[in-house]
Amino acid sequence: MDTPPTWLAALRGRFLVFDGPDGSGKTTQFRWFAEFCRTNGETVTDVREPGGTAIGEQIRDILLDTANADMSVRCEMLLYMASRAQLVEQRIRPALERGEIVLADRFISSTLAYQGTAGGLSVEEILAVGRVAVGGLEPDLVVVFDVDERTAARRMGMLLDRMERKGAEFHRRVREGYLQQVRDRPDRYVRVDAIADAEEVARRLHETIRRRFSESARVSR
Amino acid sequence: MDTPPTWLAALRGRFLVFDGPDGSGKTTQFRWFAEFCRTNGETVTDVREPGGTAIGEQIRDILLDTANADMSVRCEMLLYMASRAQLVEQRIRPALERGEIVLADRFISSTLAYQGTAGGLSVEEILAVGRVAVGGLEPDLVVVFDVDERTAARRMGMLLDRMERKGAEFHRRVREGYLQQVRDRPDRYVRVDAIADAEEVARRLHETIRRRFSESARVSR
Repeated sequence: MDTPPTWLAALRGRFLVFDGPDGSGKTTQFRWFAEFCRTNGETVTDVREPGGTAIGEQIRDILLDTANADMSVRCEMLLYMASRAQLVEQRIRPALERGEIVLADRFISSTLAYQGTAGGLSVEEILAVGRVAVGGLEPDLVVVFDVDERTAARRMGMLLDRMERKGAEFHRRVREGYLQQVRDRPDRYVRVDAIADAEEVARRLHETIRRRFSESARVSR
Repeated sequence: MDTPPTWLAALRGRFLVFDGPDGSGKTTQFRWFAEFCRTNGETVTDVREPGGTAIGEQIRDILLDTANADMSVRCEMLLYMASRAQLVEQRIRPALERGEIVLADRFISSTLAYQGTAGGLSVEEILAVGRVAVGGLEPDLVVVFDVDERTAARRMGMLLDRMERKGAEFHRRVREGYLQQVRDRPDRYVRVDAIADAEEVARRLHETIRRRFSESARVSR
């Protein structure tokens, strides 16, 4: 897609999060980008949330079990944070210390959108718990894949788990939650329009990351 | 044990936590005290941690599974808090609103002792997460059953789970964690010497609670 991707070297020892509403296509982009890095000789640690560790997968099972519909939003938020704490300690920090590119499918940004803006918990409460959960680690960049609700719903088709049954209004609030984060933290977040077909979105993604990290290379290093 | 226990009426709509190191005998005292309240006509909601709800029991299974020995202390702390958030929302708050006596076997005080003083997390970090988890609810009284490590170890016998395998030094730090809380918050905590036989400890417990709540009735109501 790109030829000599020298800009990938700037991602070594960096932590990138791919995030966005269900149906944004982020997981496809996530897989493709990890593959792209590896094809070009980079060492990548890619993790998904919730889960990504043996303990995290057990937590994931509780979170996604439709029998647990009476779970309070505070409990839910804390379970995501528990999974995240284990993931940071066991996989993310060690990989960053080895100088690898670390890619995460979801991170605190998901909790802020789903349990915060859409779920009703305050951003301050989530950030307070988040700081403790990850011991102060911040992603170098959070890429938000943005789609309208109609496109997202169409892409999701019939594969509905507990999270995905909450309907259109919920999805609207989730999207707004992500866009608010992009507005609040332009230093750490970037929005990628994800309505186009996946190849076009991937092209924009590469361009966005390339530009962001060559800028940061010039400005702050 | 006591005759006309009119002082029990002062506990209606109150939240009492029984806590202390493993082997302190707190769980026996907890069961006896709940039974004592009920025998005297009070309505009691008694909960245990971690667990106490269907979701909490699933979290408990993860916490107590000896296969999860590589769990980070942050993850562990957040799992206890998640179980607690569900317990507060689903059982403790509704029971307090109905004017019942609520008794908990362990609460944030356990996390402060085990994952904090003994486990190495800062008290401030645990309190920050705890405030969010319980939505600001504070126990009216935390009773700390205090025993020396030798007595505790003898009482525990051979029933060792993951928590209990960490040895004598760990238990010493846990005990210190509880005693520190009693010193820091004399308004909310009380220590009960739990080295004596269980009947004698129960007698002291009743006397302690009776005195505490008749004082608070005089002073603050």
